[in-house]
Amino acid sequence: MPPDPAVSATRTALRRVLESGEARQYRGEPLVVACSGGADSLALAAAAVHVGRGSDVAVQALVVDHGLQVGSNEVAARAVEQLAEIGCPAQVLTVEVDGPGGLEAAARRARYAALRAERPAGSPVLLGHTLDDQAETVLLGLGRGSGARSLAGMRPVDPPWVRPLLSVQRETTEAACRAQGLVPWSDPHNVDPKFTRVRLRTEVLPLLEEVLQDGVAEALARTARQLQDDTDALDVIGAEVLRRVRAPEGLDPVALQEVPAAVRRRVLRDWLRSEGVGELTDAHLREADALVANWRGQGGPALPGDFVLRRAHGRLHVETAGRKPPNG
Amino acid sequence: MPPDPAVSATRTALRRVLESGEARQYRGEPLVVACSGGADSLALAAAAVHVGRGSDVAVQALVVDHGLQVGSNEVAARAVEQLAEIGCPAQVLTVEVDGPGGLEAAARRARYAALRAERPAGSPVLLGHTLDDQAETVLLGLGRGSGARSLAGMRPVDPPWVRPLLSVQRETTEAACRAQGLVPWSDPHNVDPKFTRVRLRTEVLPLLEEVLQDGVAEALARTARQLQDDTDALDVIGAEVLRRVRAPEGLDPVALQEVPAAVRRRVLRDWLRSEGVGELTDAHLREADALVANWRGQGGPALPGDFVLRRAHGRLHVETAGRKPPNG
Repeated sequence: MPPDPAVSATRTALRRVLESGEARQYRGEPLVVACSGGADSLALAAAAVHVGRGSDVAVQALVVDHGLQVGSNEVAARAVEQLAEIGCPAQVLTVEVDGPGGLEAAARRARYAALRAERPAGSPVLLGHTLDDQAETVLLGLGRGSGARSLAGMRPVDPPWVRPLLSVQRETTEAACRAQGLVPWSDPHNVDPKFTRVRLRTEVLPLLEEVLQDGVAEALARTARQLQDDTDALDVIGAEVLRRVRAPEGLDPVALQEVPAAVRRRVLRDWLRSEGVGELTDAHLREADALVANWRGQGGPALPGDFVLRRAHGRLHVETAGRKPPNG
Repeated sequence: MPPDPAVSATRTALRRVLESGEARQYRGEPLVVACSGGADSLALAAAAVHVGRGSDVAVQALVVDHGLQVGSNEVAARAVEQLAEIGCPAQVLTVEVDGPGGLEAAARRARYAALRAERPAGSPVLLGHTLDDQAETVLLGLGRGSGARSLAGMRPVDPPWVRPLLSVQRETTEAACRAQGLVPWSDPHNVDPKFTRVRLRTEVLPLLEEVLQDGVAEALARTARQLQDDTDALDVIGAEVLRRVRAPEGLDPVALQEVPAAVRRRVLRDWLRSEGVGELTDAHLREADALVANWRGQGGPALPGDFVLRRAHGRLHVETAGRKPPNG
């Protein structure tokens, strides 16, 4: 009997990512699944067990207990039981959540650190993020407005993290669990409207689907994938140009002027970072670029950290604000 | 007395666009404002009269009467009156709206054709699109999911169209009208929820502003501007690479393999278009790219219009489906 279509979908998605060029380094390595007990990561674990068996690769799961909710240890134990039923050995990692930036961010930090530390060296950690999670991440990025980077969402392979289900809808993972007799845990946080992500999922996305006529989550995921490639290409090209236009005396603005604006700004960003200037906004980079593309002998912009960019003697230099130019 | 801040904002935005490198070709040319009588284009006309006076450039307005609503000729006449009060000569263009693709699309087509035909040769046509219109356009593009191109929105300079107010909020144009004693016309279409754009404006954007905590329209406009530059850069780089890798016998896949994926797909798209293959989706381009980046002797993908892409004798060729390769 052929497997349920939802089960097939999760297995195919996992195989496709593991066989992709980006995941080359993980070929033949044992697979680690980060499992919360939720439908997405439980369906992923089941797919990994199946695919691992077929290719003679060991699979194990790590279940993180954040200790943030009463009974979180029971949730973890229940996940371990479910995993045992599908033949997936699992280990519970108890983590301590603290530090700056809100509970959600702190929990994520603690979880990722524990998973990174506990995985066997060389193994990828498979995460259960779905197409719906990706769509929510793109919408979150809309509010930041920093261009392609903020809309590019999560990457399928971002070592040691691998996200095989970014092309699979959440409801498919739920159907895959049902078809395999798995009973996933429903995290009450997933419906608590105090979280921005929950409101994006339960209010914004349904309204967008209604107004723009369906397929919005898929469209957002498709856009994310294309923007990942675009930013990768521009970063690679920017790095090549930077090698060509930089010299010990500074950056050559005449050579830099020849390349398109989006590349120029990336070159300037990377060069300024390498000179110790961080926290650059798009506005800073546009002002810096005016010294290259629109040079009329003007002074350069003030940059974060008390730096100033100047153009003198046919070079761009970074100076500490208030100090005289090196040869000026 | 200094002008009202809203009036200043419209004038500054207009000056900035006219002085930009992209609008170089329009320096000293008479300005034509497309005016509907609405707040945005009326405020733009007033700004153009002021800026034109200061730089000794003639300004005129064209008012399009689509004849779609009862009394549309009165709306046009009222716009001409308002324009006369600020010293802007205006002419009404009566157009006939028909053809395929819905009323909105047909009206836009007729309007743009008339404006293009009636402007003095060499003049730009200034359009009143605001930051809010840009945000709505980006949201419309989200539903298409074709990456940067669908999210890049409208361009400030897209000859013969110039959109000076893409950085100005709609409510600023309303305030500028009030400050200058202008009474704009409120198009009932602007609040009719049968239009997708109206629902984006009145339902989706306010919800996004609430969930993502304000500044979403500005963030969308900022993102559009960055994605315009990104796509421009990738298109320029793609065209350079295409010149390098194309030969009379076909495309050189080995040379093409060296460049980043996003550039490869653009090169393939432009090359296939020049070979007469149109309507390419992202999926087609990814399959075509597999012949370059993931070559294992496989057959090539079927492309729209009964074409097939093949790799043979170290070259990529387009063939009519079913026919044998040229040297095979």
